[in-house]
Amino acid sequence: MATDLVIENIIGCNGAPTTIAVTGGKISAIGADARNAGPTEIVDGAGRLLLPGLVDGHIHLDKTLIGLPFIPHIPGDTVAKRIAAERELRRTVSLPVTARGAALIAQIAAMGTVAVRSHVDIDTEAKLSGLEAVLSLKQSHGHLIDIQTVAFPQSGIIRDPGTAELLDAAIEAGADLVGGLDPAGIDNDISGHLDVIFAIAGKHGVGIDLHLHDGGALGAFELRQIAERTIALGLEGKVAVSHAFCLGELSDSDFARTAALLAKANIAIMTNGPGPVPMPPVKRLQAEGVRIFAGSDNIRDAWSPFGNGDLIERAGIICDRQDFRADADLALAFSLVTAASGAVLGRGAPLTIGAAADFLLVRAGSLAEAVAGRDRDRIVYKAGRKIAEAGQLV
Amino acid sequence: MATDLVIENIIGCNGAPTTIAVTGGKISAIGADARNAGPTEIVDGAGRLLLPGLVDGHIHLDKTLIGLPFIPHIPGDTVAKRIAAERELRRTVSLPVTARGAALIAQIAAMGTVAVRSHVDIDTEAKLSGLEAVLSLKQSHGHLIDIQTVAFPQSGIIRDPGTAELLDAAIEAGADLVGGLDPAGIDNDISGHLDVIFAIAGKHGVGIDLHLHDGGALGAFELRQIAERTIALGLEGKVAVSHAFCLGELSDSDFARTAALLAKANIAIMTNGPGPVPMPPVKRLQAEGVRIFAGSDNIRDAWSPFGNGDLIERAGIICDRQDFRADADLALAFSLVTAASGAVLGRGAPLTIGAAADFLLVRAGSLAEAVAGRDRDRIVYKAGRKIAEAGQLV
Repeated sequence: MATDLVIENIIGCNGAPTTIAVTGGKISAIGADARNAGPTEIVDGAGRLLLPGLVDGHIHLDKTLIGLPFIPHIPGDTVAKRIAAERELRRTVSLPVTARGAALIAQIAAMGTVAVRSHVDIDTEAKLSGLEAVLSLKQSHGHLIDIQTVAFPQSGIIRDPGTAELLDAAIEAGADLVGGLDPAGIDNDISGHLDVIFAIAGKHGVGIDLHLHDGGALGAFELRQIAERTIALGLEGKVAVSHAFCLGELSDSDFARTAALLAKANIAIMTNGPGPVPMPPVKRLQAEGVRIFAGSDNIRDAWSPFGNGDLIERAGIICDRQDFRADADLALAFSLVTAASGAVLGRGAPLTIGAAADFLLVRAGSLAEAVAGRDRDRIVYKAGRKIAEAGQLV
Repeated sequence: MATDLVIENIIGCNGAPTTIAVTGGKISAIGADARNAGPTEIVDGAGRLLLPGLVDGHIHLDKTLIGLPFIPHIPGDTVAKRIAAERELRRTVSLPVTARGAALIAQIAAMGTVAVRSHVDIDTEAKLSGLEAVLSLKQSHGHLIDIQTVAFPQSGIIRDPGTAELLDAAIEAGADLVGGLDPAGIDNDISGHLDVIFAIAGKHGVGIDLHLHDGGALGAFELRQIAERTIALGLEGKVAVSHAFCLGELSDSDFARTAALLAKANIAIMTNGPGPVPMPPVKRLQAEGVRIFAGSDNIRDAWSPFGNGDLIERAGIICDRQDFRADADLALAFSLVTAASGAVLGRGAPLTIGAAADFLLVRAGSLAEAVAGRDRDRIVYKAGRKIAEAGQLV
């Protein structure tokens, strides 16, 4: 197959000049080999820094209100009240999920996000409508972004009878993973909640990504329950837990035994670097062998008026929360929104021969400068095609 | 005096259409009166939202490395090591403070900052050189930004003999306030450190703004010592403490007695919404009658590779740390970088008749949307003159 494209005059994350060749939407050569790719389209990279495409490990394409006029946040003291407020709001918004989700995809693709794991609300009111909308976006917007879907029981499973069957139907309809939500805090039934999720995962051979906000010793107990079931069912490497704030507030002994089980079960922990609550300690978890990755979570939706989906900014937020300042630490934070999140989504190592030609060219002299400066003037390639420049889709 | 300018077709923070008139660099009318300002230059505000100019309550114009190629952060386990690393770095950078500070001023003025309180390092090596540079920027860049200076003993006072005399000389040379730094944590002598600062404040009739990173009960003890001295010397309303992380980690009883003394002494607390450490609880402090305001702190300097000086983003960071989501809470966070910081800097209430015509016109339908969206397409007026548009100085 003839080479589609060679980009010259760029620098790699090691600071050295390099060249990249793209063939059939994949990276066919990097470095000296790429310079010898033969007659093809040659692009001048203008000395920009080559970065892997950004992978958002946790987003809610169906929830966003982007595309609508700004809607003030409806406060709610409890998660249950916020769930109710969101369901009420959902009935009144004038734009469908396909339009709002498409607006969000356009926004994040322009900033360099090439793949996302999107949780999609499944409940007895919405049923599979949100999932169907996101699956249609997966088709219509595949040229911009790869979408993986999680059937997410935002209103609980046990407390919203009928949801278990809908989760099962969601997997049949094409959802990639089954989700969960605070087995104790929302469903008041840890075993009951986990029974449903793990049964669906086992039945369909799909993975799990469960939201866990429950704090302290309770959250840690739930994590260990999830790990034990994961090991018992042979689902190691297919289970993720999102948020897991509790990991940021455990005693040393509780942390050690919980982390050991998470590592043994090869469970990945997703964090967005939350501001008002404890967060999983990145380096301590990695030292215990626990995988950790990152994502945006809420982007202007019923849960938060904030968020923009910029994953380089997200890496910076994680640096702020973890007191990361040195170049190596900024690179570590960046890996959470690239290689680490990509691995959880089942993508191979980025920027390697044969990998999808999903990458960015940014104005920075080093990876640390790119993370610290979060310049928005990014050129984005998706499957070897230039899809964005200077913050705008092309 | 003839009206210089009338801006029509704008909306106020209450959402209602309004008009603003500027005469001699000050606001001469707002609302219906402004529409009758008579023959003058009429500007179409294109439906933008009128916001007060942003006031940065804590910045270090002398420390920034903006204008230089990116310099990797030099890690240091202790504050003392970081101080040493910064002094070492300062000897080697190729651009003078006037150039780096000017680059930072250009950056923040373009985002809408109209006034800053800049701490300036005073130590036995730099002596008054940093202050002289910032005082020269105050003259050369007064059309963009108002600068207030604090003589800041970054290397300590007791541990760096000669600094006390330099702080005194700094006030003589034109610094507006005397600073301080962790009387316990850096100088290991709470009374000795405070004796020096309060003596200089008393001698010259200037205010105090002291950096306090010391945590927990120790930090709270220092806060009470500062408050007691403030009351004893009649300096109520003239003293600020920056950071005061300890206020975010006190027992209820320790918080109550510390906050009560801070309120009695009318001490203002500055926070930048720090990520890795506890932060002062905004609403709890206000409920106790303690003034709180905000600023950027480090912007790409030896202390952090992060920071951009955007005070609307800073308000959002504070929202994230304080779990602020509702419109009223976003407005509260915004007040910390406008009215509250302005009051600490001795500025009158913004957007009132007779106030400096320092304001922004942004693309948002409400204050909450402006804070949540932090759009960079801002039109900035300083003393009635348009100085920036779309993120660039004009």
